[in-house]
Amino acid sequence: MGSKYPRSLRFHLPLWAFLLQVASILLFCFFISYDTLQMDQKFMVTYQVFQDLTLMAALGFGFLSSSLRRHSWSGVAFNFFMLALGVQGSILLDYFLGKTIQQNEPFDLFSIRKATMSTVPMLISAVAVLGKANLVQLAVMVLLEAAAFGAVKVVDKQVFTMDDHTIMMHGHVFGAYFGLLVAWCLSRSLPREMDEKAQTEKLQMATGSSLFGMLGTLFLWIFWPSFNSALVESQFINDKKRAVFNTYYALAVSAVTATSMSALSHPQGKINMVHVHNAVLAGGVAVGAPCFLITSPWIAMVLGLTAGLISIVGAKCLPVCLNHMLQIRNPRGIHYTFGLPGLLGAVTYILLIPISYNYPRLMVNNYMIKDWGALSFALAMGMVSGLLTGCLLKVKMWRAPHVAKYFDDQAFWEFPHLAVGF
Amino acid sequence: MGSKYPRSLRFHLPLWAFLLQVASILLFCFFISYDTLQMDQKFMVTYQVFQDLTLMAALGFGFLSSSLRRHSWSGVAFNFFMLALGVQGSILLDYFLGKTIQQNEPFDLFSIRKATMSTVPMLISAVAVLGKANLVQLAVMVLLEAAAFGAVKVVDKQVFTMDDHTIMMHGHVFGAYFGLLVAWCLSRSLPREMDEKAQTEKLQMATGSSLFGMLGTLFLWIFWPSFNSALVESQFINDKKRAVFNTYYALAVSAVTATSMSALSHPQGKINMVHVHNAVLAGGVAVGAPCFLITSPWIAMVLGLTAGLISIVGAKCLPVCLNHMLQIRNPRGIHYTFGLPGLLGAVTYILLIPISYNYPRLMVNNYMIKDWGALSFALAMGMVSGLLTGCLLKVKMWRAPHVAKYFDDQAFWEFPHLAVGF
Amino acid sequence: MGSKYPRSLRFHLPLWAFLLQVASILLFCFFISYDTLQMDQKFMVTYQVFQDLTLMAALGFGFLSSSLRRHSWSGVAFNFFMLALGVQGSILLDYFLGKTIQQNEPFDLFSIRKATMSTVPMLISAVAVLGKANLVQLAVMVLLEAAAFGAVKVVDKQVFTMDDHTIMMHGHVFGAYFGLLVAWCLSRSLPREMDEKAQTEKLQMATGSSLFGMLGTLFLWIFWPSFNSALVESQFINDKKRAVFNTYYALAVSAVTATSMSALSHPQGKINMVHVHNAVLAGGVAVGAPCFLITSPWIAMVLGLTAGLISIVGAKCLPVCLNHMLQIRNPRGIHYTFGLPGLLGAVTYILLIPISYNYPRLMVNNYMIKDWGALSFALAMGMVSGLLTGCLLKVKMWRAPHVAKYFDDQAFWEFPHLAVGF
Repeated sequence: MGSKYPRSLRFHLPLWAFLLQVASILLFCFFISYDTLQMDQKFMVTYQVFQDLTLMAALGFGFLSSSLRRHSWSGVAFNFFMLALGVQGSILLDYFLGKTIQQNEPFDLFSIRKATMSTVPMLISAVAVLGKANLVQLAVMVLLEAAAFGAVKVVDKQVFTMDDHTIMMHGHVFGAYFGLLVAWCLSRSLPREMDEKAQTEKLQMATGSSLFGMLGTLFLWIFWPSFNSALVESQFINDKKRAVFNTYYALAVSAVTATSMSALSHPQGKINMVHVHNAVLAGGVAVGAPCFLITSPWIAMVLGLTAGLISIVGAKCLPVCLNHMLQIRNPRGIHYTFGLPGLLGAVTYILLIPISYNYPRLMVNNYMIKDWGALSFALAMGMVSGLLTGCLLKVKMWRAPHVAKYFDDQAFWEFPHLAVGF
Repeated sequence: MGSKYPRSLRFHLPLWAFLLQVASILLFCFFISYDTLQMDQKFMVTYQVFQDLTLMAALGFGFLSSSLRRHSWSGVAFNFFMLALGVQGSILLDYFLGKTIQQNEPFDLFSIRKATMSTVPMLISAVAVLGKANLVQLAVMVLLEAAAFGAVKVVDKQVFTMDDHTIMMHGHVFGAYFGLLVAWCLSRSLPREMDEKAQTEKLQMATGSSLFGMLGTLFLWIFWPSFNSALVESQFINDKKRAVFNTYYALAVSAVTATSMSALSHPQGKINMVHVHNAVLAGGVAVGAPCFLITSPWIAMVLGLTAGLISIVGAKCLPVCLNHMLQIRNPRGIHYTFGLPGLLGAVTYILLIPISYNYPRLMVNNYMIKDWGALSFALAMGMVSGLLTGCLLKVKMWRAPHVAKYFDDQAFWEFPHLAVGF
Repeated sequence: MGSKYPRSLRFHLPLWAFLLQVASILLFCFFISYDTLQMDQKFMVTYQVFQDLTLMAALGFGFLSSSLRRHSWSGVAFNFFMLALGVQGSILLDYFLGKTIQQNEPFDLFSIRKATMSTVPMLISAVAVLGKANLVQLAVMVLLEAAAFGAVKVVDKQVFTMDDHTIMMHGHVFGAYFGLLVAWCLSRSLPREMDEKAQTEKLQMATGSSLFGMLGTLFLWIFWPSFNSALVESQFINDKKRAVFNTYYALAVSAVTATSMSALSHPQGKINMVHVHNAVLAGGVAVGAPCFLITSPWIAMVLGLTAGLISIVGAKCLPVCLNHMLQIRNPRGIHYTFGLPGLLGAVTYILLIPISYNYPRLMVNNYMIKDWGALSFALAMGMVSGLLTGCLLKVKMWRAPHVAKYFDDQAFWEFPHLAVGF
């Protein structure tokens, strides 16, 4: 079936994307250059971490949402498109933000690593919105979210004096609630029967697609320790080590908890595949912020257990309440994978700081206020900007005047009817 | 189709798994803590090896058995569940065993690495049993196997003074024969027509599923050098190097041999996909034990060739004999991938020790007796404990009183009829 | 459907492959041995790069062509077979070539790395030919191509004094045009209606298969920086760093360009999946040769943009012209992924040398002549040897006397009708 967009829109979107790319090259040309002086003997080691991050972002998040048959291909392809564009944008944004706050960091592998991590909130939000938005809406959403997260990063750094690691971990919470509120706005505009059609369709999964979903989940699971430890400073080598260990334990426990709780909560003792896909990662998200502070494995394991319980209990009970009260439908479970576990992790981080003295924070009260402030700001910013973006995307401008209300974005990625020559 | 378990069993299994997880956290809380004093500059390098092992265990073994359409999803999911639980169990077991034999090893990345390798025999056995056992039986089998392999490890270390590397390589043999004997016991209890139904079904493979099987095989193939060299001590840097090279050559040769022999043995010159899946890994298994002793690539290549021949000839000829005599049906070819090649490798290891003088073994005869003893013990222990476990699993307790004899465990992992809210 | 080969051929091919393997082991036995004296502290780091290359070659190229439903399994399996055999052959070839030119390199990980990279041109050619040739033809083609590329390597090194990195980057051009000309010869021998049948069939893609194609593309995309930087000498650590960065930027830009241009060039604004599969890699290929010379990211980005444009515009416009004039059908787009971008990169490399003074080349004119010569030689050699190989493969000897003209090689890899025992 053909796309129902008016010709202008269909033509403009890829043109805009192309012009954005050209603009990005021009900005790189004038501002970004390599640090030729810096000699880095450990280059190949840091390169491996960077490669793990790219692998997570491209394969993990790409295939995470591929279990839905209709959106599998567009999910993977758009995730990849956003990553390639988002990393360039984040490098430029970081450069200009560094200029404004008079903090000149050298440009090296660490910059690309940070830029890759900055695109993760966008990838999370896109998972929430996939199937509810068309490509134009997704592109606008990503641009607005990049700007909003850039603002969060500057405020966190300047006002709350947070380190890069904690800012990135707040990114999970930011991305999840941003995506949720955009999805909420968009699903309100869909007529009820269309939405139910979408619900029904979720059950129609091919085995192949669900294995791709599992593949994405496993890639994220395997490389999550790299993600959590990537921005922990390397001068405290034990911090990095602890970050890896704690993430590993939390993930192992949350995987076991999620699988057994999913079977336990089902009337016939079956394991819900989608619950497992989502809940398995909750432990890694929850341990994200405090991973380098935790000194005993059991604390990380308790966090993993709690996150696993939250994600399964949340997926079972909350939808019923939320559906009736707020008409929020939790799209693709990101609320229970990234939202609530991220909040749990951020709160644990704040509570652990007074206990762990190996971190140079003397005036605990003062710092705790700052930490609470930074978390609340990230959460509020995610919700407010998500709501605004959602309202903006509901405007008729982004859709054709006389178009079917629910519309498949797969047509956009579909194979053409007539392959020319190839 | 719904699960035919009685309610109590369906409810108890996930509850047991959950309680096991809670117990594991409590044990970690009281006994395991990080070594904060140890500074490890090479942490990121050893972390990569550990990541390779996790990738092998989660993706490789998970997708290895996914070529069977009915069991693909449950194979991947249960493999993942076993890995997450098994690593925790192995860390605790290693700690307590280390306590009993007064050998206090520091707790670090090496411990997790060893624990991941200790779960590999269980993953191998599970591949053999998949499709013949239900989830309850699998869970019981894994617990019993973990205990039996723990005993093998202690006896190998205390009585036969073997090093970690050789013990782990005996794990292939142990896991393969354990799984084979459990599968033999279980298949005897299935009525004949049910078993034939299962045989027929193996032919019904979707292309997608077979590509997933290939994906798993390739992941194992790529990361097998990491596996074989992971426990070779790093002070002998050349040993590690040789382990990697020899494994690589053996795998390359066994892949070529397996592919060409598979075509050669087929009346129409076709290549049997399942033979290739299994035989490709045989070379890596065979070279496992002696990989750090071999000083010329051609010895490793001859081992790879022999292992490839064994696995293909075995898959062609042995089933006919065995089927008629012993009623053993070789499930999923693990006998020819892990069993026989593992034995070949262990025997080569024993024969190579007198030749290679760079290993500090002066009284060759004395040591050879010990080596033969350790191998025989691992083999015998695998067979005896497998037989006992198989008999135990045949007891009616694990199945509902009036349940269909052959029963699909996929129902357990199936998507629920009514997705709640999500 | 059964294979229509005469019995002798069906029997001989795997036998030849097996004998080739035995011959390779014998040659290894007499000539290749490990360097036991060399102590390499950085072994684990270089091992990671080598693993990335194997992963690219086995998974990336294997699944790249798996989007065609009929050839998916045979594509992955034959790619794997060629890799395992090709690496052994390349090690032997490099050894004997090193002997003839009196250049005794120590045998270490670098040798395997170079050997893996030497098989890449063969994997590229095989992608072009897949679906047009049967297995016998593919095997003959690979042997002839290995010999031809060996000749290119010797002449490049002896006559044109090129370094390993540049020779390998010429390999893309060599492999692409070799494959194209073989495919051209073979497609001329197919009757027209058969060829059209093949064209139509390309449209029949399952979603699962296209996701596998995406998986292969993403693996190549992620590990391409490792590939481009693998042979850049490690004494110039900044060169290696620059190679990684430039490849990363070029790939990101070419991915964005390819996706947006594909939508722009389609009358309905849809994105052609196959275009994206191919074009995404063009940036990495184009930046391959000059990657260590480029000192500002924007130059790499412009290269990526140009390569992306070339690959999409080429795929859209060139086939129409070429189809009418030369009857060349571009098989699987390798012309636009490896051929033209490789030429672009090689030309950029030659133009950048006078500008970049950090490379020790004083007599620029003299060197530029050598560089042009080496590139022309690789291109000409690829075309001439491809044409000769194609003519040779058209000879009736390789096919049965009374066989259907277009014939499916999948039958060869198909699951046998009667699984024996397993």
